[in-house]
Amino acid sequence: MVNRMEAARRCLAEFSQEAHDLYLNRSVPYLDGPPEPLDFYRDWIGPNKPCIIRNALSHWPALSRWTTDYLRRAVGSKVVTVAVTPDGYADAVRGERFVLPEERQLPLAAVLDVLEGQVQTGSSVFYVQKQCSNLLEELPELVDDLETHLDWMSTALGKLPDAVNFWLGDSRAVTSMHKDHYENLYCVISGQKDFILLPPTDRPFIPYGRYQPAEYRQRDDGVFEVVDRSDSEKVPWIPLDPLRPDLQRYPQYRGARPLRCSVKAGEILYLPSLWFHHVQQSHGCTAVNFWYDMEYDIKYNYYQLLESLSDVTASVHHQGES
Amino acid sequence: MVNRMEAARRCLAEFSQEAHDLYLNRSVPYLDGPPEPLDFYRDWIGPNKPCIIRNALSHWPALSRWTTDYLRRAVGSKVVTVAVTPDGYADAVRGERFVLPEERQLPLAAVLDVLEGQVQTGSSVFYVQKQCSNLLEELPELVDDLETHLDWMSTALGKLPDAVNFWLGDSRAVTSMHKDHYENLYCVISGQKDFILLPPTDRPFIPYGRYQPAEYRQRDDGVFEVVDRSDSEKVPWIPLDPLRPDLQRYPQYRGARPLRCSVKAGEILYLPSLWFHHVQQSHGCTAVNFWYDMEYDIKYNYYQLLESLSDVTASVHHQGES
Repeated sequence: MVNRMEAARRCLAEFSQEAHDLYLNRSVPYLDGPPEPLDFYRDWIGPNKPCIIRNALSHWPALSRWTTDYLRRAVGSKVVTVAVTPDGYADAVRGERFVLPEERQLPLAAVLDVLEGQVQTGSSVFYVQKQCSNLLEELPELVDDLETHLDWMSTALGKLPDAVNFWLGDSRAVTSMHKDHYENLYCVISGQKDFILLPPTDRPFIPYGRYQPAEYRQRDDGVFEVVDRSDSEKVPWIPLDPLRPDLQRYPQYRGARPLRCSVKAGEILYLPSLWFHHVQQSHGCTAVNFWYDMEYDIKYNYYQLLESLSDVTASVHHQGES
Repeated sequence: MVNRMEAARRCLAEFSQEAHDLYLNRSVPYLDGPPEPLDFYRDWIGPNKPCIIRNALSHWPALSRWTTDYLRRAVGSKVVTVAVTPDGYADAVRGERFVLPEERQLPLAAVLDVLEGQVQTGSSVFYVQKQCSNLLEELPELVDDLETHLDWMSTALGKLPDAVNFWLGDSRAVTSMHKDHYENLYCVISGQKDFILLPPTDRPFIPYGRYQPAEYRQRDDGVFEVVDRSDSEKVPWIPLDPLRPDLQRYPQYRGARPLRCSVKAGEILYLPSLWFHHVQQSHGCTAVNFWYDMEYDIKYNYYQLLESLSDVTASVHHQGES
C-alpha cells in the first residue's frame, strides 16, 4: 500500500512537471500593447497563464501625475486604512500564529511623511494595502487620474471588476505567499513591484498549516505585541517564505519552480486566479489593481481535487511513512 | 494506509460530484442562434461544457437538399470508405479484443441501396464514418452544400478545423464510448443523432482495459471472423456499454452521471474535448462534423492527472484491498 500511495504522490509530482513542460513559460512573457479581448481570453485567461502588458496605461494621467507632492495636495487629508507591522510582514505566519497587521486610520499625508522619512516611526512599517476597493471608497479624488476598469479585460470577462485597490508601500513591506480567487490586473504607477509566482499546479509542493489568528498591536513604548483573536477559528496559510525557504522543514518545496518578475511603472501584470504570489516593492511604489471575480468552473474544480490530494499525500510525508 | 488510499479515492469521487454541483448542467442546454465568438469561448469552450446550437445552419443548402435521391445523383458514383460490422459496433471491445470494422471502398450508391433496403446484406451493418476529413477528401462535390468551417467557432478558436467528416449510418450502427482530443461541432443534416455524454471529470468511474486489436473480416458465406492484428500493441479502451452497463463487473460506474441528448436536423452539438461520448442515430441520418484541435493546456494537464490517479486508485479496487 505504501507503494501505491507513493504512486499517487508520483502522479502529483509528474503532473506539476508536465505543466511546466507542456504549457507554462520559463519566465513571464510581455505583450506590447492592450490585447484584443478574445485573444486575451484564449491566450491567457483560459490557459491561466501570467503575462506583463506594456503600453496599455499610457493614457492614464496618473502615470505622470502621481508624485508624492501631487498625492499630498490631492488626497493628503483623506483618511486611509494603513497596515502597520514591526517587520513589513502583514498577514503572515509567525511561529504558531497567523499574524494580521495593526490597522490604523490615518491621513494619507501621514503615510507620505513616513515614506519620505520626514517622520520617524522607529521600527514600524507602513503599507496602504486595504483590499476592499479602497481606491473607489477611500480615495475617489484619484479616480479621474485613471480608469475604473480596463475595457479589454472587462469585455473579455463580460463583467466589471469586483474591486479596485490602491497600494502605497514601504520597501520593507512584504505580501506573504498566498493566492486569491480573482483574475488580477496589477498596474504599477510609479516604482516597481517584484513578484515571485507559483502556478496552481505546484500546489503539491507548497506547505500549508492551520494557524491561530492574531494581530499586531503597538504599545505606547513602540514595542509590538501579538494579540490572539479569541473569537477566530484557525486559518490555513503557507508558512514558507520563498525568499528563504526552509527546505529542512519543507523538503517538498524543492519540487516547486517559482517564476520571478519585476513589474515597472506603466506595466500591468496579469496575475491569473489561484496563482500563488509573494510581493515586494520599491520604496514609495504606487500601484492600482483590479480584481475580477474568477469563474468557479472546471479549472477550479480540478484545483480543489489537487488541493485535497496534496493534503492526503502530504500527511503521509509528515508521518514519515514514505 | 488503506484508509489513506481510501481517502484519495474519496477525493476523486467528491471531485466528480462537485463538478456536477458546481458548473455542469443536468441536461444539455440550447442556444437559439450562432453565438458571438468571445461569448462562446467564455461560456462553453473555456468551461468545457456541451450545448446544442439551433438556427445556425439554416443557410446551408444541404439541409433541404440532402435527400437520398440527391446524394445518389450528386455523389452516387463516388467511392467512399465504409465500416462494415456484424452488429453495428465498430471500434468496440468484444471479449478480450478491441475490434475494428472491416473497411470497404464502395460507391456511395451501394451504401444508399443498403440503407434503403434495395439490397440485402444479411447481417452486416454499414456505416460511413471515416474520420479523415472524408467530406473534403472523398466527397468534394458536396462542399457547395455547406460551409467548410463555422465562422464563429474558427474565430473563437483562432484556427480552422483540422478535419471535416461526413457521416451516413444505419440505425444499428453504434459508436462505442470514447473521447477525442478535439473540440467537436456535430451538425445533423437529416434524421437525428442520440448521444450519451460523460464529462471528463467522471473519469474515475469509467473502466478502462487494454485490448488486443483485431478487425472483422466477412467471409464469402457472409459470416464475420475476428482476425487479430498481429503487429499491433494493445490499445486502451472502455469495455463498458452505457446502454447496458455491467455494474457487477464495473461497480464504479454507479458513480457516473451520463447526460443524454438528441440532436435533430439543423442542430449542432458542441461536444467539448475529452468528453466521453456514445452515439446512435436514426436510419439514414446524415451529419457533418468539424474537429478543431484541442489546446494542450492546464485543463489537459489536470485531466492527465485525473487519469493517472484513476488508474492508481482503480488498481486497489480490482485487487479487492478496499
